[in-house]
Amino acid sequence: MEKSRKLKSVKDEDQFYHQGAVELLVFNFLLILTILTIWLFKNHRFRFLHETGGAMLYGLIMGLILRYATAPSDTANGAIYDCEKLKTALPTLLVNITNQVYEYQYKREISQHNANAHQGNIMLQKMTFDPSIFFNVLLPPIIFHAGYSLKKRHFFRNLGSILAYAFLGTAISCIVIGLIMYGFVRAMVHIHQVESGDFHFTDCLFFGSLMSATDPVTVLAIFHELHVDTDLYTFLFGESVLNDAVAIVLTYSISIYSPKENPNAFDAAAFFQSVGNFLAIFAGSFAMGSAYAVVTHFFPLHLTKFTKLCEFPMLETGLFFLLSWSAFLSAEAAGLTGIVAVLFCGVTQAHYTYNNLSAESKIRTKQLFEFMNFLAENVIFCYMGLALFTFQNHIFNPLFVFGACMAIFIARACNIYPISFILNLGRKQKIPRNFQHMMMFSGLRGAIAFALAIRDTDSQPKQMMFTTTLLIVFFTVWVFGGGTTPMLAWLQIRVGVDPDEDLKAEATTQAANNQESNTTKTESAWLFRIWYGFDHKYLKPILTHAGPPLTTTLPGWCNPVARLLTSPRAYGEQLKDDDMDFIVSNDELSLNCATSDLPPMPGQSRIESLGAPGKENIYEGDLGLGGYELQSEPAPSCPSQQKNG
Amino acid sequence: MEKSRKLKSVKDEDQFYHQGAVELLVFNFLLILTILTIWLFKNHRFRFLHETGGAMLYGLIMGLILRYATAPSDTANGAIYDCEKLKTALPTLLVNITNQVYEYQYKREISQHNANAHQGNIMLQKMTFDPSIFFNVLLPPIIFHAGYSLKKRHFFRNLGSILAYAFLGTAISCIVIGLIMYGFVRAMVHIHQVESGDFHFTDCLFFGSLMSATDPVTVLAIFHELHVDTDLYTFLFGESVLNDAVAIVLTYSISIYSPKENPNAFDAAAFFQSVGNFLAIFAGSFAMGSAYAVVTHFFPLHLTKFTKLCEFPMLETGLFFLLSWSAFLSAEAAGLTGIVAVLFCGVTQAHYTYNNLSAESKIRTKQLFEFMNFLAENVIFCYMGLALFTFQNHIFNPLFVFGACMAIFIARACNIYPISFILNLGRKQKIPRNFQHMMMFSGLRGAIAFALAIRDTDSQPKQMMFTTTLLIVFFTVWVFGGGTTPMLAWLQIRVGVDPDEDLKAEATTQAANNQESNTTKTESAWLFRIWYGFDHKYLKPILTHAGPPLTTTLPGWCNPVARLLTSPRAYGEQLKDDDMDFIVSNDELSLNCATSDLPPMPGQSRIESLGAPGKENIYEGDLGLGGYELQSEPAPSCPSQQKNG
Repeated sequence: MEKSRKLKSVKDEDQFYHQGAVELLVFNFLLILTILTIWLFKNHRFRFLHETGGAMLYGLIMGLILRYATAPSDTANGAIYDCEKLKTALPTLLVNITNQVYEYQYKREISQHNANAHQGNIMLQKMTFDPSIFFNVLLPPIIFHAGYSLKKRHFFRNLGSILAYAFLGTAISCIVIGLIMYGFVRAMVHIHQVESGDFHFTDCLFFGSLMSATDPVTVLAIFHELHVDTDLYTFLFGESVLNDAVAIVLTYSISIYSPKENPNAFDAAAFFQSVGNFLAIFAGSFAMGSAYAVVTHFFPLHLTKFTKLCEFPMLETGLFFLLSWSAFLSAEAAGLTGIVAVLFCGVTQAHYTYNNLSAESKIRTKQLFEFMNFLAENVIFCYMGLALFTFQNHIFNPLFVFGACMAIFIARACNIYPISFILNLGRKQKIPRNFQHMMMFSGLRGAIAFALAIRDTDSQPKQMMFTTTLLIVFFTVWVFGGGTTPMLAWLQIRVGVDPDEDLKAEATTQAANNQESNTTKTESAWLFRIWYGFDHKYLKPILTHAGPPLTTTLPGWCNPVARLLTSPRAYGEQLKDDDMDFIVSNDELSLNCATSDLPPMPGQSRIESLGAPGKENIYEGDLGLGGYELQSEPAPSCPSQQKNG
Repeated sequence: MEKSRKLKSVKDEDQFYHQGAVELLVFNFLLILTILTIWLFKNHRFRFLHETGGAMLYGLIMGLILRYATAPSDTANGAIYDCEKLKTALPTLLVNITNQVYEYQYKREISQHNANAHQGNIMLQKMTFDPSIFFNVLLPPIIFHAGYSLKKRHFFRNLGSILAYAFLGTAISCIVIGLIMYGFVRAMVHIHQVESGDFHFTDCLFFGSLMSATDPVTVLAIFHELHVDTDLYTFLFGESVLNDAVAIVLTYSISIYSPKENPNAFDAAAFFQSVGNFLAIFAGSFAMGSAYAVVTHFFPLHLTKFTKLCEFPMLETGLFFLLSWSAFLSAEAAGLTGIVAVLFCGVTQAHYTYNNLSAESKIRTKQLFEFMNFLAENVIFCYMGLALFTFQNHIFNPLFVFGACMAIFIARACNIYPISFILNLGRKQKIPRNFQHMMMFSGLRGAIAFALAIRDTDSQPKQMMFTTTLLIVFFTVWVFGGGTTPMLAWLQIRVGVDPDEDLKAEATTQAANNQESNTTKTESAWLFRIWYGFDHKYLKPILTHAGPPLTTTLPGWCNPVARLLTSPRAYGEQLKDDDMDFIVSNDELSLNCATSDLPPMPGQSRIESLGAPGKENIYEGDLGLGGYELQSEPAPSCPSQQKNG
C-alpha cells in the first residue's frame, strides 16, 4: 500500500509540474505565432490588423481549441459540501482523512449560481491565471515604459490640454457611461432580464469608470510607425496614459464608496469621502513614484562620488529595474495605486536618472524595458483572447453589451468635443476638427479596462460587466484599431512627420511674431517657469551631474551642505545642461498661451541664453520593431535652433 | 447586510492584492540590498563572501525578521476538520456556508505530525512560493545561460574528461552518498532517532543523487573574475553544468524506481528499468533541446531569404527567447527533463543560431540572457536564505546532517581522484595534482540540489533531507565559496590568464614537436573529426550563412534541394567560415590525445588550410559585472595562429 501511494504521489507530482509547463507552453506558442505574424505584417506593410489584434485572435482560437478539444473533468472534482460549522471564511482548510491530513487553500467565494455550473474543465481553470499576476507583473512594465518613453518636450507643451482630457474627460466619461448604463439596467429590470437588487447606481458608475480607461498600445504603435503629426500623437499618448491612472483610482474610489442607507440614493458625505479618497490616493501614488525615482538615482549617484557603480552596468541595470518595480509594489502594499506610482516613477526617471546612467546602461535599460513591454503587451492581448473561452463564468447579455457600446460612444463624444471646444477658447494654436475626430475615433479599450474588470468577477453583475468589457475590447481593437490607417487618410492628418523638424519649423515661424508672443504668458507657463527654475537650480544639481553647482545657487551659509551634495562632475560640466528640452524655448512655451503680465523669472535669461538644443535624450516610444541605431549618446543638438533663443 | 458584505469583500480583495505585492516587495528589497553589497565588494576587491553568499545571508536575516517580528496568525486560520466522507483527495473543495459557496483549492498533503504543528504564520506560508516557479521560471535562464556561454573551444578539447567527470563521477557520487547515508540511517534506527519504516535504501540513493548536483554559479564567478587557468575553468564549468543535468535525470529515475517487493532488496528488473529510463530521458531531452535550437534559427533563417527578420531586432530577440524557453517547457510537458533540453538548446544555439542573428540581436540576446541569469541566480540564493526560517516543516537531525557532510566529502574524493587518475593514463597533458585538489574543493552545492529537495517535502524523510540540503548549501557556499581565493593561492594555480594567449602559446610550443603529435590521434579525436566534417559540410550550410554552399558538398543529383536550402549569402561568403573555433587546429586537437593509426579524414586538409582563427564568437560567461565593449562583431582572428595550421 505504501508503495502504491508513493507511486501515485510521484505521478501526481509530475502531473502537477507538467501542468504548469503546459500552460506556459501555450502562452509561449501563442506569442511565437504572434511574433511571426507581426513580422509578416510588417514586411507587407499590412496595417489592418495590428499585432495586438493578432495576439487576441490567436488567443481566441487557442481558447476555442482548449474549450472544445480537451476533456472536461469529472464532476467529482468539484463536489459540493454543505457545512454549517465553517461559519467564517478560512484561509486554510485542513481535512483529515484516516489520519492523512490534506491542506486546502482558500481560493475565492463563488455564488450559488456558479457553484451549480461549476462542473468545468480543469484545464480551462488552470489557464485562467490569477489576476494579481496581471497587476503585479504584467502591467507595471507597460505603464513604466509609457512613462519612460514620454516625449517630454511635446508633452509639457500640451500639458494643460492633456490634463484636461485625462482628468475632466475621464470623469465625464465615467459619469455619462454610468448614467446611460443605469438607464439600460432600469429598462432591463422592467423586461425582467436582470433582478432589481443586482445592479445599483454605484455598480453602473463602477462600470463607467473601468470602461473609461482607454488603451495606449494599439493606436499609438500605429501612430508611431506612420509618424503621425506630433501634437496629435502627444494628445493621444498623454491622454490615454494619464487616463488609465485616473480610471484606476476612480474605480477604486467608487468601489469603496458606500452610501449609508439606500445604495441608489445620493449620500453627500460618502461622495465627498470618495472624492477625498481619489485625491489622496492619486497624490500619494504620485509622491511615492517620484520619491522612488529620486531614490533610484540619488543614492547610486552619491555613492559614485567615491566609487563607480557605472563600471558594473549589470548592477546598475538591475538596481534601476528593481527600484522601479519596487515603486509599484510599495504603492500597492501601502494601499495606493501602483500604476500611478510607476507611471510617474518612469517620467521622473526619464527626466533625472537617465542622464546619470552610463552609456551602456542607457542602452541596456532601454532595451530591457522595451522588451518587457513588448512581451507583457502581447501576453495580455493573448490572454484576453483566451479568456473569452477559458473563463467559465461569462454572462452574456446582448442588451447590456449594446447599451455599453452606445454608452462608450456617447461618453467619448461628451469627453472630446466639449473639452476641445473649451480648450480652443484658451489655446493660441487651436486643436483642429480633424484631430478631434481622430481622438474620438481612437478611444480603444484594452488592457487596463480588462484588468480592472477581471479583478472582481465574484457576483453576477460583475461577471456581466467582465463579459461586456471583453467583447468591447475585441470590438474596438479589431474595428477601430484596424481602421486607424484609413481614418488618418480620410481625415487628412499629416503622416511621416519628423518631430524635431516640426518643432524647428514652428519655432522659425514663431520667431517672426516673437514680440507678440513674448508678452503672452499664461499662468500655466508661469507655473512651469517657477518649476523649471527650481528644478534647474536645486533639483538638477542634487540629482544629476548636470546644471550649475549648488554652491553657486544656494545662499552662502548653505555652502558645506551644497558642497556635499554637488557632484564633482557638475563643476566641470557647468554649461552642459542637457535637459533643456524640458522647456524647449521661451517662444515655444508661449505658443499655446494667453496673456499675463508677470515679470520675467530670474532663471529666464539663462534659459534664453542657452537656447533650445533639439535634444530628445529619451528613447521615443519606439517599440524597437523598426530597428534603432547603436548610438549611446543623445542625438547632437541642432545648432540652427540655438539661434532662435 | 449586503453593504457590509460588499465592504468586507472589497477589503479582503485589497488585502489579497497587497499581500502579493508585499511578498514581491520583500524579494525586490533583498535583491536591491544584494546588488548594493556586490557593488561594494567589487569595489573593495573583497572576495571572501561572494554575491551568492551575500544574497543567502540577506535572505536569512529577512527570514528571521519575518519569522519572529510578524504576528503569528490565530489558530482559527488552520482549523482541523475531521471528515470521513472526503475519501478521495479532491483538487477543489466547495464549501457551502449559508448559501455562500467558497472554493478551496487542494494545496498539499501534510502528515499528522505537521498538522499539529501547523498553527503557523500566514505571512511565512505566503513567502514559501510554489516550487514549480523554481523549475519553470527561475532555473531555465540560469541553465540556458550556462549552455549559451560555453567556451566551445576549451570545452571540446577536454570533452572526454568532462563527460567522465559528469556521468561517471555523478554516478559514483550518488552511490557513495547513498551507501554512507544508508549506514547512518541504520545507525540512527539503532539509537531510535528515526523509525525503521521511514528510510529505505532508495530514499538514501535519492538523497545521494540530489546531493550530487554541484553548483556552477559561485566558484565559476570567482574563477572568471580572477581569470583562473582556462583548462581548470573548463573542467569545473563542464563538470558542474553537465553534472546538474545528470543529477536531475538520476533523481527522477530513482524516484520512479520501485522494486516489486521489499523496498530494501535489489530488484534487477526495476533497476534496469531505471537505467533505461535514465538513458531514454537524457537522450530524449538532448534531442528535444537540439531540435528546438535547430528550429529556432532554421525557420527565421530560411524565411529571411525572402524577407528580413533581422530588420526587427525586437522580434528576433523575442522569438529567440520564446523558442528557447519553449524547449524547456516542451521537454517538461513531454515528461522529459527540461533542464537538459534547455542546456543543449543553449549549446546548439551558441553554435549555430548566434551567427545568424543580426549584430544588434547578438548584443540584445546576450544582455537579456545575462540579465535574466543574474536576477534568477540572486532570487534563488535569496530564497534559499529565506527558506531556512520561512519553511515551516524543517526536521533538523544533527546526526543526519553530520553524516551528509561526511558523505559528500568522501563522495567528492571518490569522484575526482580516481577518475583523474584513469584520465591521466590516457591524456598527454596530465591533469595536475593541484587541479585535482581544487576540483575536490570546488564541489559546492547550490540551486539545483535545493530545487530538487524542495520539489518533494511531503513525508518526514523528505523534510529531513530538505533541511539537510539547505544547511549543506549554506555551509559549502559560505565556507568553500569564501575559501576559493585563498585556496587558489595556496595551491599555486595560475590566475590572470588570457585564454586566447594561453591557447596560442600552447600551439607554438606544440608546433616544435608537431610531427610527433600529428601521428597521435585517439578515437575521441577521430569521432570529432567525423562530426566536424558532417557539421561543416552539411549542417552549417543548411543552418547558418557560413560554410561552403551545399551545392558543392552534396552529390550532383541533390542540387535542386541544395539550392533551396543554401542561404544566398553562403555563396558570397564561402571562405568566411567563422566557426573554426569548434576545432581549433589540428595540433590542438591532438594535444591531449594518445596514438591511433587512422587515415586523415577528407575534411582535414580544408581544416588545415583554413587554419585556426582565434575567434570566440560567443560571449564567454561574463556576468557583465566587469563591463564589456559595445562590439557587435566577434573579436578579430589572430593572424599569428593562422601560420600554425
